[in-house]
Amino acid sequence: MKFGLGIVAMTLLGGSAYAQLPGTPPAMPDGPPPLLAPQLVATAENLRDKALEGNAAYPLLEGLTTEIGPRLAATDAEHRAAEWAAARLKAMGFENVHLEPFKMTAWIRGQETAEVVSPFPQRLVLTALGGSVATPPEGIEAEVAIFKTYDALLAAPVGSLAGKIAVVTQPMPRTGDGSGYGASYQIRGLGPSEAAKRGAVAYLLRSLATDERRLPHTGTLQYLPNFSGAPGRPAPKIPAAALSVPDAEQLDRMALRGKPIRIHLTLTPTTQPDATSYTVIGELKGRERPDEVVLIGGHLDSWDLGTGAIDDGAGVAITAAAAKLIADLPERPRRTIRVALFGAEEVGQSNASYAAAHPAADQARTVIASECDFGADHIYAVDLPKGAAASSFGRSLGRVIAPIGAFVSSETAKDGGADLESLVGVPLAQLAQDGTRYFDLHHTADDTLDKIDRAQMNQNVAAWAAFTYLAADSDVDFRALAAKP
Amino acid sequence: MKFGLGIVAMTLLGGSAYAQLPGTPPAMPDGPPPLLAPQLVATAENLRDKALEGNAAYPLLEGLTTEIGPRLAATDAEHRAAEWAAARLKAMGFENVHLEPFKMTAWIRGQETAEVVSPFPQRLVLTALGGSVATPPEGIEAEVAIFKTYDALLAAPVGSLAGKIAVVTQPMPRTGDGSGYGASYQIRGLGPSEAAKRGAVAYLLRSLATDERRLPHTGTLQYLPNFSGAPGRPAPKIPAAALSVPDAEQLDRMALRGKPIRIHLTLTPTTQPDATSYTVIGELKGRERPDEVVLIGGHLDSWDLGTGAIDDGAGVAITAAAAKLIADLPERPRRTIRVALFGAEEVGQSNASYAAAHPAADQARTVIASECDFGADHIYAVDLPKGAAASSFGRSLGRVIAPIGAFVSSETAKDGGADLESLVGVPLAQLAQDGTRYFDLHHTADDTLDKIDRAQMNQNVAAWAAFTYLAADSDVDFRALAAKP
Repeated sequence: MKFGLGIVAMTLLGGSAYAQLPGTPPAMPDGPPPLLAPQLVATAENLRDKALEGNAAYPLLEGLTTEIGPRLAATDAEHRAAEWAAARLKAMGFENVHLEPFKMTAWIRGQETAEVVSPFPQRLVLTALGGSVATPPEGIEAEVAIFKTYDALLAAPVGSLAGKIAVVTQPMPRTGDGSGYGASYQIRGLGPSEAAKRGAVAYLLRSLATDERRLPHTGTLQYLPNFSGAPGRPAPKIPAAALSVPDAEQLDRMALRGKPIRIHLTLTPTTQPDATSYTVIGELKGRERPDEVVLIGGHLDSWDLGTGAIDDGAGVAITAAAAKLIADLPERPRRTIRVALFGAEEVGQSNASYAAAHPAADQARTVIASECDFGADHIYAVDLPKGAAASSFGRSLGRVIAPIGAFVSSETAKDGGADLESLVGVPLAQLAQDGTRYFDLHHTADDTLDKIDRAQMNQNVAAWAAFTYLAADSDVDFRALAAKP
Repeated sequence: MKFGLGIVAMTLLGGSAYAQLPGTPPAMPDGPPPLLAPQLVATAENLRDKALEGNAAYPLLEGLTTEIGPRLAATDAEHRAAEWAAARLKAMGFENVHLEPFKMTAWIRGQETAEVVSPFPQRLVLTALGGSVATPPEGIEAEVAIFKTYDALLAAPVGSLAGKIAVVTQPMPRTGDGSGYGASYQIRGLGPSEAAKRGAVAYLLRSLATDERRLPHTGTLQYLPNFSGAPGRPAPKIPAAALSVPDAEQLDRMALRGKPIRIHLTLTPTTQPDATSYTVIGELKGRERPDEVVLIGGHLDSWDLGTGAIDDGAGVAITAAAAKLIADLPERPRRTIRVALFGAEEVGQSNASYAAAHPAADQARTVIASECDFGADHIYAVDLPKGAAASSFGRSLGRVIAPIGAFVSSETAKDGGADLESLVGVPLAQLAQDGTRYFDLHHTADDTLDKIDRAQMNQNVAAWAAFTYLAADSDVDFRALAAKP
């Protein structure tokens, strides 16, 4: 849906036969814009082909997931990951490699168990949501109130869930573009406060997931401090956890029997104030305009359950590998390429931290920014800032990525990734990946290296190298393109 | 491989055009044997079609996995399962429904955690093997010795693993017929004693598994009491656990770095002597020869991690549902059909217990026996006792099951299922299921109802109903057929 106009765009921008390399094609009245300089396009094509034939990203990802493994924000493991990444970036030839620290409160998972006490005693598999408060150490026991839809929970009157554990078992739709997750996000993010407002003592949801594995999907919640059930009384923070899909379905089946279901739930997470997370920076200094920055990257932290291969070791490896291919060219591009490996993305601390460390003047010099954070499966489209798809840049990029099954979309990029949300006035791009199987693995213990498709990851590196190189070695001005009528 | 001759068998037995119903076909010299009586074949076909169109097994399996869930041998959960099953069999019209108790030592899972301490600290996902002894409560920490093959472990000299945790990371081959599991079984079953003989303090294996989920596969081990490393000194019992496949691969990758790997391992299972398990029996009393028994069934116990849907709630549901279809006929078959739902199969206690409760005289009156214990996917062949494939029984069964994509194999059944191994002189059959995906789920937390393919389960019921009915309402004498030269 999101990229529905892309086919049209590809036809308009890439279908013309007259613009053949070598030789700069003439501009035709009302025809497509000219390509960028032939040497630029040819170099981008070479980078693309090197990425496809090579093995640039996988060793980085293998190293990060093996030698560090899980790297929860602001823990020792994330610190080790930051040191590891800085050492790797230096060894790869990046300049200005450094860590940018920022303070935050760390959240540390504890024990997490649940059992149906009656009428059908058995264990349930679940995992605490990031940021959840704890139950008492001995746990809590209560009857459940099951809602097949989140809308049904919202329809429950204030006070109606007093003393109960609210459970929402609504399934998340599988889509390729993440829209199913976007449409379901509030079930996890806001459900705990909505349930608390209605009197619930704890909150469970069916994992936001497209798989049927017996592995729960964690993720953050947002307690809403001013979310009041009765005037002047904020909703309490209640413990919240995600059931694996088979366990949520098991509760649905039990509910059909019509007997009250009682659950014993124990969650013992803790928090650590004044912890430190880091964003790791590495740059390729531009040979002509070093103050102009093309910003790419992924996030270095991961959830604690898996080893963060698809989320987001892949984005770290793909963008760093793409930049490394560019670093291996005979000369640096004209502009600076900055690889930012963000800390604490999963817990929502990263983007404000980057913006704080890179204030207005730096952001004003940032030519374009894009983050890779949706796994490592096929890139099928590139969304560019307004006006760029129909520019020489867009046409040239479309030419380079068409052979790898991708197109420049006519849709304007809506965002560039979660870590770029706090940037002001920075043009954003999005390299859209096939997310069809992403939410089978997302935020689970099963997010491990073996789930990576190496051929598709190479295709990602190819697209990122082409995009990044063309932005850094051309004089495209995305702000000016966007300002055109 | 195992059923490679089946194609030939089907051609020989079922390809003739002359034997058309209605009317008993004449026997031709050197031709195929005559079919059984037309009414028998027609009834078997009707049962088959009812099974395919109906929904006989799924509600049973849904009930068992939902209302009981996991049912580890000789625990309260297995007792509840036995009571549940007896009540269901009675409600379905079975006669002589009763529980046959037997004493055993129960094994109860405890805490099970492991972490790589150095050089790359991170959690490992594993599960204790059934029957494993415990570590001290605080766990043990030791360096690992990793063997890429079980054969390499066996080649290690006695004493060479002193103080180490032995780890075998050999993968199990995926096959359709279970032969990959058979070829790998000793890695789990005998590995702990082989490692202990060489001095190891604990033993880990890559799960016997064909999936790449982050879910370990449990299963029994066999400590060998007379398995001596030095003369007169039996190998000690050491704690043993199975790593998930991604975790075993993670250790393989760490090992490539060449640094010593230290693991902290905690397993705290306990045992309970003088516990009780039960086999549940239900019968359809034969109208003419009630003392002759066709014995079918599955095992009622399961491992504790999942809800035992494929292992072996499916076998329970399929065989009970097939018998129920026969119970709904206007009259009982001539012989008795006995459905046995075995207790404590997973821990190896079931078959001796059944044989003890049904000694020689009963076994001598058992016409044929077969167990369903390999999931619920497509039945592609039926192995019969020696001489039966080319008999009227075999030809008639082949005729009935050919339309559902199954054939009577020319291979003699090698066994009838784990629960029938202690029977003496009882003819055995095997309804061979497609096990291609069985070991993705086997003995894991992921063995849950949602993994069942209902259409394939109905096909199983169809084949079981046809087989059971033809054996019970004919006068086929498998012992006599086997005795022919």
